[in-house]
Amino acid sequence: MTFSFELLAQDTLTQARAGLIHTPHGDIPTPVFAPVGTQATVKTLTPADLHELGASLILANTYHLYLRPGPELIADFGGLHHFMGWDGPILTDSGGFQVFSLEGLREIDEDGVTFRSHLDGSKHRFTPEQVIAIQEKLGADIIMAFDECPSPEDRDYNIEALDRTHRWAERCRQAQQRSDQALYGIVQGGIFPDLRTQSAEFLTGLDFPGYSIGGLSVGESKADMHAILEVLHPILPAHKPRYLMGVGSPEDLFECVARGIDQFDCVLPTRIARNGAVFTPHGRVNLRNARFAADKAPIDPDCTCYTCRTFSLAYLRHLIIAKEILALRLTTIHNLHFMLDTMRRIRLSILDGSFADYKHDFLQKYQTVPEENRGKRK
Amino acid sequence: MTFSFELLAQDTLTQARAGLIHTPHGDIPTPVFAPVGTQATVKTLTPADLHELGASLILANTYHLYLRPGPELIADFGGLHHFMGWDGPILTDSGGFQVFSLEGLREIDEDGVTFRSHLDGSKHRFTPEQVIAIQEKLGADIIMAFDECPSPEDRDYNIEALDRTHRWAERCRQAQQRSDQALYGIVQGGIFPDLRTQSAEFLTGLDFPGYSIGGLSVGESKADMHAILEVLHPILPAHKPRYLMGVGSPEDLFECVARGIDQFDCVLPTRIARNGAVFTPHGRVNLRNARFAADKAPIDPDCTCYTCRTFSLAYLRHLIIAKEILALRLTTIHNLHFMLDTMRRIRLSILDGSFADYKHDFLQKYQTVPEENRGKRK
Repeated sequence: MTFSFELLAQDTLTQARAGLIHTPHGDIPTPVFAPVGTQATVKTLTPADLHELGASLILANTYHLYLRPGPELIADFGGLHHFMGWDGPILTDSGGFQVFSLEGLREIDEDGVTFRSHLDGSKHRFTPEQVIAIQEKLGADIIMAFDECPSPEDRDYNIEALDRTHRWAERCRQAQQRSDQALYGIVQGGIFPDLRTQSAEFLTGLDFPGYSIGGLSVGESKADMHAILEVLHPILPAHKPRYLMGVGSPEDLFECVARGIDQFDCVLPTRIARNGAVFTPHGRVNLRNARFAADKAPIDPDCTCYTCRTFSLAYLRHLIIAKEILALRLTTIHNLHFMLDTMRRIRLSILDGSFADYKHDFLQKYQTVPEENRGKRK
Repeated sequence: MTFSFELLAQDTLTQARAGLIHTPHGDIPTPVFAPVGTQATVKTLTPADLHELGASLILANTYHLYLRPGPELIADFGGLHHFMGWDGPILTDSGGFQVFSLEGLREIDEDGVTFRSHLDGSKHRFTPEQVIAIQEKLGADIIMAFDECPSPEDRDYNIEALDRTHRWAERCRQAQQRSDQALYGIVQGGIFPDLRTQSAEFLTGLDFPGYSIGGLSVGESKADMHAILEVLHPILPAHKPRYLMGVGSPEDLFECVARGIDQFDCVLPTRIARNGAVFTPHGRVNLRNARFAADKAPIDPDCTCYTCRTFSLAYLRHLIIAKEILALRLTTIHNLHFMLDTMRRIRLSILDGSFADYKHDFLQKYQTVPEENRGKRK
């Protein structure tokens, strides 16, 4: 077995856990935040940039890579790692989230989903077996079962979709041929504790090497999200990693780590960076703001990222106003550094028993943007 | 005197020269190609990238920086070097080329030019004194006299403009207050040998620390450009650097170095890079071409740039087709590496007496794009 999870520490005041995921492409200290590299590139960054940032896991999107450049091409290159020049761990999603988002362009049946490409309207079909075959060609270290993603507050649809997702999870388990990829089962059930319980129990019975929590951060309230995590915590096996898909914001890291989550991914830090918004210990700021026009300070004087070590707020604002491409990379570097560094500190605080204090201090300073952070999955 | 030029070698078969320009921000081995950083950034690259590429001089545009973010702001930051985080030598142009390109938006009189901003239509005025004051605020190591740039083939306009350019050159010399910047005079006169001779002789009489050759690479033939360089060679003082503004393509480097040029700048390598076109020893290729879709080779197997060390043609093409921002940076890195590395080899070949052979070998392999290379000044 080339994949395993070591649970190194369990916080006493919260459900926070620190661990280590072993993969064929290296170890992933957990909790971990994975930058999103939708099309086999974390937008604006090279693999060298990602190494410098200390990224230990990145995500790539099966749906996008299936359409372009195609799994056969990537397989011919020896997989995603070789294709994109990133030698660290990679996770691929199942494509389910993207396909189910194609409202009006997809049709679901018991066996799978027929959909039209958002690129050229061409017709395609995903089945559990097909999605596993694609992910085996892409060759990520961690892969996902094919799941249906209903709107989290639609109980009837969630009930109907859940059984199908469970049958698909079994078929994915059956279809898997490579032994060097860890296939995670995905817990669904919307905001409904009984459905989530049912899903977690069913999937635990299939003994996946890890469990994803899907269908959250897509419109429900934070309170609902937290409640679901609390329901799942005692059900999911402690010795398997737990991955909350598509989350989160800086404050989400704290709240969800405190509820037992080990893995995160989200386009938020990189997407808002390209709009000129950056994280600071006091919350988000937009660099377009005229108050930065002559500011000689960096984004955050305590930040050690290349952007903050090198450039003033005034220069960054100038690049943004002048529509210079470099701006996108510099803000992306800062925001990912913020997420990865915050996660490193969270992990250290779990290991030395100070997580609850760190969480309290961070959240007291950090002013959140109430609902804008949400529904940012790609 | 903080600026000086050392002539280290003179080729025996051609007029090629190798030298060293000393500036307050370091030495520039010549001949040199300067990447263009129009808005205080070489598009897509950080100063760290430029250092890794071995850039020893970059250009910034006075017109653009005057409009945005403004010379006062940059002066308040201690000059362009501090503002943009580049500690190596910088050259600024006079803004003349851009202002005279604003057809219909500018009016010339004996004292200067009144023009409207291309950004917001606001009214501005450049005089020789004003242009020197702006460049003193920007604080580059090498600055340019304010010159008028007529169409190179319009003899009457060239005659009329030349006297004004000469009077402006004298006024620029008078207006200069900083002693740590080298002010170059700009030779004009279109494609007319007698006018170029007159201009070079007049400006030589003013004893500038360096001489620029303006008004070329804007539509005239390569033969005309070469003829003018041959006319100027014996007139311009041998112990001063000669800068051919807005040139060139890879083949231009060889042809113009062979005619005594020490300094070049051009947006061509970076601009075509952003359109997916890259230099190879055999000429230019466009990475969008379907023949690269599954090609595992790098752009050039002998190239040592980060892009060629790390990525396949297929991956680069994927990034371009998928409209990924990273593509722009990777092709820019390659094209600048190609220019800078070619120039380093040119310099070594001058120093060891093999320039003519190297030129012959390079040009025999390199297939030029006849007229597309021209008129690429920004």
